[in-house]
Amino acid sequence: MLRRIERAHRRKPRMRDERITLAHGAGGKATQTLIEAVFLTAFHNPVLARLEDQAVLTVGGARLAFTTDSYVVSPLFFPGGDIGDLAVNGTVNDLAMAGARPLHLSAGFILEEGFPVADLTRIAASMAEAAAAAEVDIVTGDTKVVERGKADGCYITTAGVGVLEHGFALGAGLARPGDAVLVSGPIGEHGTTVLLARGDLDIASELTSDTAPLAGLVAALLDACGGGVRCLRDATRGGVATVLNEIARASDVAVVLDEAAVPVRPEVRGAAELLGIDPLYIACEGRMVAVVDAADAEASLGALRAHPLGEQAAVIGHVVAEPAPLVLCRTGFGGTRIVDVLIGDPLPRIC
Amino acid sequence: MLRRIERAHRRKPRMRDERITLAHGAGGKATQTLIEAVFLTAFHNPVLARLEDQAVLTVGGARLAFTTDSYVVSPLFFPGGDIGDLAVNGTVNDLAMAGARPLHLSAGFILEEGFPVADLTRIAASMAEAAAAAEVDIVTGDTKVVERGKADGCYITTAGVGVLEHGFALGAGLARPGDAVLVSGPIGEHGTTVLLARGDLDIASELTSDTAPLAGLVAALLDACGGGVRCLRDATRGGVATVLNEIARASDVAVVLDEAAVPVRPEVRGAAELLGIDPLYIACEGRMVAVVDAADAEASLGALRAHPLGEQAAVIGHVVAEPAPLVLCRTGFGGTRIVDVLIGDPLPRIC
Repeated sequence: MLRRIERAHRRKPRMRDERITLAHGAGGKATQTLIEAVFLTAFHNPVLARLEDQAVLTVGGARLAFTTDSYVVSPLFFPGGDIGDLAVNGTVNDLAMAGARPLHLSAGFILEEGFPVADLTRIAASMAEAAAAAEVDIVTGDTKVVERGKADGCYITTAGVGVLEHGFALGAGLARPGDAVLVSGPIGEHGTTVLLARGDLDIASELTSDTAPLAGLVAALLDACGGGVRCLRDATRGGVATVLNEIARASDVAVVLDEAAVPVRPEVRGAAELLGIDPLYIACEGRMVAVVDAADAEASLGALRAHPLGEQAAVIGHVVAEPAPLVLCRTGFGGTRIVDVLIGDPLPRIC
Repeated sequence: MLRRIERAHRRKPRMRDERITLAHGAGGKATQTLIEAVFLTAFHNPVLARLEDQAVLTVGGARLAFTTDSYVVSPLFFPGGDIGDLAVNGTVNDLAMAGARPLHLSAGFILEEGFPVADLTRIAASMAEAAAAAEVDIVTGDTKVVERGKADGCYITTAGVGVLEHGFALGAGLARPGDAVLVSGPIGEHGTTVLLARGDLDIASELTSDTAPLAGLVAALLDACGGGVRCLRDATRGGVATVLNEIARASDVAVVLDEAAVPVRPEVRGAAELLGIDPLYIACEGRMVAVVDAADAEASLGALRAHPLGEQAAVIGHVVAEPAPLVLCRTGFGGTRIVDVLIGDPLPRIC
């Protein structure tokens, strides 16, 4: 059984679907297949082929990170945030995960005819506040309007440029057997909050999105033990499970999780149980996974916990050589289950 | 009458509309008001406030240009191009207009559930071809999927980074009385082609979009007479009329056009007449306006005409001090009319 899964993981992706489905936007297996079969095939170049959340480039002698993300979250406003701060924080975090200092953002708006100007003003204010908190400027933008029924209020695409000021190499392909796997805080709060805000589940909750800019937390971690950090990834679409599968695949290693060590708030656990979704697959927008040298695990945990956005950081597992490229989870009952790549999209449009 | 228009032009924009209309995406007066009243107010920073089509930044010691554009063109495929090469060329051109050498692009896709994978593959191939022609790489990207009826097949947002390798200052605010105004080729072909491709007008035509990457043309012009070039703008949404109004406003000058000198193909003129639109307002996606020192007008024209994308370049007018900030057009009948900023959106979703 493991053999068959391993073979499936290694097979070159082919696009079997004739039409785009919601799963292609979920960040899991279908997204990966679409990216590899359509975009990598067309745009093939070594930077894109790294399949990181950002490109690291040398431009005019400067080492830069460059990234983009489109935001289609529904609803646009939810407890703890809105599409505006989500779009700013998401791009800031993709830059931060390369160890870059985020500097400048662009913002492209696709608006639906009839969208209230008051809502747009509120979104812009939220973007400005998030940009100020992350110490970035929104320096260029674009606005397009489509007819009623050709969008859903407001979509935003941010791109960002940051500068790499250190020499640390970070990447999903750099994990090694023995490394420790950390998460910077409780998982799944953003996805669960957005889901509850849709009102599909009749649950009252105090839960708020975890959306936050992580560049300061990354800087604290790299300052403390930069040389021992292998890889940083924010656990957005597809959650921690997807990030770990990407790392296992890129590094050709296996990851063993200790389920009991993964921080999950009771509200998230409860909603996930109702929905039949593993919290490991639910998106965060202000949490990251860090893979670090085992020798630096304690120092890394200390550095994360000393920062306001990492107070509940935890070591949640470790890297082993086999069975690559799988993610395994040791359950509370002494068993082990495979945490596979995400199939389908249980939570569409959470970012 | 002129006085009243001048006063209106100088008034600080206020957002009177409660809801977004198609005009807010047209690139004219309503777009300008939206940007100034909502986005500039929220994001206020000196780079954005320049209101150029790109930000010019110093990052890690390098001088960079950074820009973004969202593409919602309908139909997605049209004679001479599609949303893919349009998205690449548009971002390449916004970088080139700052005199930058375009280097790296990002691409964010918002796809509608049910969109044919074959169409996406065709769009990606077209983007790859345009990127190769413009000598840029698509180095990072993102894909989101929304439910049926929440988009119109495929929207693309590209962002781009380029490097400034010369010391020339270019900007819409640098035009001076006496300067010559040039256009790099016949105007309005892109907008007219897209409109005809919709089939709303029963006209058969051989017309194709002018979509093209202009960085090579700009390099040729700057090599020939860089010190004399004041400002470059690609004449996209809102056409040449909108670009000239932006320059007149930013430089506090007036522009006098010689209508007979503006190159317009008969098919464009014919379609424009049927629609009751002045070709000066119809978008190009591979033409630029250049304002140059009068002493360099002939050399600039020669440099443009020597390049395959500028063979039909022309001097179309000149800059005068008064009545700022207006654009005037000398007609074939010896009269003069005001070419005002675009009101409403006669041609929605042409890019």
